[in-house]
Amino acid sequence: MEIKVVHQILEWNEDVSDKIKSDLTKKNVCLINLMGSPGAGKTSIITTIINNLSDKFNIGVIEGDIAGQIDAQKMKDLGVPVVQLNTDGACHIEAMSIDNILPEFDLDTLDVIFVENIGNLVCPAEFNIGEDMRIALLSIPEGDDKVEKYPLMFQTTDALVLNKYDMIEYFDFDEQRAIKNAKDINPKISIFKVSNKTTEGVLEFIKYLENKITEKIG
Amino acid sequence: MEIKVVHQILEWNEDVSDKIKSDLTKKNVCLINLMGSPGAGKTSIITTIINNLSDKFNIGVIEGDIAGQIDAQKMKDLGVPVVQLNTDGACHIEAMSIDNILPEFDLDTLDVIFVENIGNLVCPAEFNIGEDMRIALLSIPEGDDKVEKYPLMFQTTDALVLNKYDMIEYFDFDEQRAIKNAKDINPKISIFKVSNKTTEGVLEFIKYLENKITEKIG
Repeated sequence: MEIKVVHQILEWNEDVSDKIKSDLTKKNVCLINLMGSPGAGKTSIITTIINNLSDKFNIGVIEGDIAGQIDAQKMKDLGVPVVQLNTDGACHIEAMSIDNILPEFDLDTLDVIFVENIGNLVCPAEFNIGEDMRIALLSIPEGDDKVEKYPLMFQTTDALVLNKYDMIEYFDFDEQRAIKNAKDINPKISIFKVSNKTTEGVLEFIKYLENKITEKIG
Repeated sequence: MEIKVVHQILEWNEDVSDKIKSDLTKKNVCLINLMGSPGAGKTSIITTIINNLSDKFNIGVIEGDIAGQIDAQKMKDLGVPVVQLNTDGACHIEAMSIDNILPEFDLDTLDVIFVENIGNLVCPAEFNIGEDMRIALLSIPEGDDKVEKYPLMFQTTDALVLNKYDMIEYFDFDEQRAIKNAKDINPKISIFKVSNKTTEGVLEFIKYLENKITEKIG
């Protein structure tokens, strides 16, 4: 029974996701869905992106959280338009929530919106939210077996960021294992080794993002 | 609509959870539900528990994973009875799955079963699985804001293990913030600072567990 219900929700979700994609294409706005475990570093990497790309693009942010607005406040402090989406317990963001939120932004003035999804390697991967692109974060302290254990997340993402890469000397993390697993299930995946602390790998990742956003909005 | 469906599943789940609790009380077996983010260190701490308590209790393990059996193999190598529960995409374990799995164990010979739940700070907290006790892991690299962001997990747990505690000097983790937040929403919570690597705090946590298990099975 449960499986059928999820299927119905997913079909409805896909319709709304397609509508968002069409709406945003008309407005020439790129939507990027950022996912990863709790504490993988999603907020930090959005901060890094804003600091590196806000002179090139007008950026907005949707902060998804079960509760609270800790991260939205951080984005507000950076001076970007931000909307906090509280899911009130739900473990992922659905397309309908994004569709409801978009009118809060002045889309005519924006080039790209980043969505920080709920910290969760499972459910967010199942729900398209009208995004042009997915980024999955996997932080070094989480361990090198996560691609095998949570395959859908890494199978459906465009880019994998191995985050907190400066910590690799302190953890037993076999990066070749993680990279091989990711490429086995997702041959087109782009993989970046990034540290927000030391800025290692940041420029390469930012360049990739810049190209992807430019591809979409021209 | 979605909320109603979840509600129905939760009610049904509660009935099965109560049945498991009653069945296991008759068999004098304690069930412990271990939860936390992907990579919080759930498998490592179960290994530590087995190494420290297998001379006192007969221990069994249920390994929950979306896919694969990496962790079950580790448990098998330790010589304990283990069953791998693959949820095939689902983000949490439900009581019905535990009820189906228990006949795989010889309950007359067991004192305690540890359930390693799916790596997820959200959904597992909503589903009782007939457990006598919940343990939530929060690893230092995940950050000190996780109690605020994922309150239900920390509100419903008996014990909070601040895991990978040896890493605290490398991360910007305000332990007083995390501890205060946990105690504010859950005044009876027991909190342990543990490192499986340096064994810091392990003995205190093991002693607590031993007492809790003994309380149940006498």
